[in-house]
Amino acid sequence: MSDLYPVSELLSHLAIILVRPKFSENIGAAARVACNMGIERLILVRDQPPDREAMAKLATHKAAHILETMPVYDDLAAAVAPFSLLIGTTARHGRQRALERGPREVVEAVLPDLPQNEVAILFGPEDAGLTNDDLKYCQLLSSIPTAGFSSLNLAQAVAIHCYEFFYALEYAPKVIAPRPRLADSHELEGMYAHVEEALARIDFLQETNHAYWMNNIRQFFARMRLGKKDAKIIRGICRQFLWHQEQKAVTDKRR
Amino acid sequence: MSDLYPVSELLSHLAIILVRPKFSENIGAAARVACNMGIERLILVRDQPPDREAMAKLATHKAAHILETMPVYDDLAAAVAPFSLLIGTTARHGRQRALERGPREVVEAVLPDLPQNEVAILFGPEDAGLTNDDLKYCQLLSSIPTAGFSSLNLAQAVAIHCYEFFYALEYAPKVIAPRPRLADSHELEGMYAHVEEALARIDFLQETNHAYWMNNIRQFFARMRLGKKDAKIIRGICRQFLWHQEQKAVTDKRR
Repeated sequence: MSDLYPVSELLSHLAIILVRPKFSENIGAAARVACNMGIERLILVRDQPPDREAMAKLATHKAAHILETMPVYDDLAAAVAPFSLLIGTTARHGRQRALERGPREVVEAVLPDLPQNEVAILFGPEDAGLTNDDLKYCQLLSSIPTAGFSSLNLAQAVAIHCYEFFYALEYAPKVIAPRPRLADSHELEGMYAHVEEALARIDFLQETNHAYWMNNIRQFFARMRLGKKDAKIIRGICRQFLWHQEQKAVTDKRR
Repeated sequence: MSDLYPVSELLSHLAIILVRPKFSENIGAAARVACNMGIERLILVRDQPPDREAMAKLATHKAAHILETMPVYDDLAAAVAPFSLLIGTTARHGRQRALERGPREVVEAVLPDLPQNEVAILFGPEDAGLTNDDLKYCQLLSSIPTAGFSSLNLAQAVAIHCYEFFYALEYAPKVIAPRPRLADSHELEGMYAHVEEALARIDFLQETNHAYWMNNIRQFFARMRLGKKDAKIIRGICRQFLWHQEQKAVTDKRR
């Protein structure tokens, strides 16, 4: 792939987001292996500051710079805002989640988006993994194939994903047909907020089925691969609908 | 591949050998990820007993049985004796070593041998890796492709190799044409000892070039893929030559 896009430039579009990791050692180990695979962007979502010493020891001095420049967020929404493709990682539990694939397939699916988009891979806490609320931001799910025992160590899961990305970029076909820039998470979340409001207004969303339908709608839009403009148009329609309803309510009252 | 050989049966021919690891945590982490990938044979070469607690913590209770049944050897030669295909892992250092490939290529090369052979992957100590003396037992070398920083954490390197084996077996073509059983390391080392003695006797091997030529001869035979019978024949020729030289010396003396 290096003919058209240098590998290092493509990798600069890729980030690892660690969501509420418990052990600082795992943050360090993730930094080290990301560095091994040429990925320099590690992002932490955690309300407590990590143990610097434990983290640095596992990172080794070679990956120290990754920890030094690592952004730390309280909140996942803020962390994912600039990304337009989010890959959620889950352990295989037998429960079927839509769109779930192995890392190799995910990498293959995402590669053509890498030149024009910011892509992040999300890893959940060691004990429980990403919640459904975390996964709502994700367009793709990745599960590492395993034998019976499916729970990998956090840094191992990071290693296998980084390795698959680096390997694909280093050895895959020399030319990719890049796909256009997609709407980023910030734009999408703004759109979803308006879609949600509009659907609630017409009682499509009710208390009991709210989460279920919003999840379906998110999956539907994820498949659509919306661009910035698409997200704007959909948002515009919802806004217009809401405004129209507002006006109607005012007129109805006056009658 | 599961049609002809069940994945679990093929994986039972595969072992991970940790050669002089420094940190017991890494032994535990390796056991865990081996277990994740359905590999149950972990072998330790180490003259000091590991720290059981540190090891068990990283293995988690799911992989505890792997640690309990783990054979421990003082000596690498004894550990590799039953294996007929040995894969040595090395970090990329720019120095060209013969036969070096990435793990994916190594797995592809070895898969047809798995039904009829015992295969082991060797991992060296965290700081220095496998020595040339360790690597002499290996028919294949595997280096994980990396960006600039090539030194992976030991358990991460184990993870990537186990993952590649499991992935290939789980998802690769359903049918493999198995290749015959090769001579095991015990048989080969016996043969090499005789070859070495014979070559020394004719002054082909001298003090200054001894190691260099034996290394070349090992690489040559590694490419030959010797079976048990081949090793026996070569050994027989050397033995006969040595006996013949002995007789000649006796006869010469008598004259």
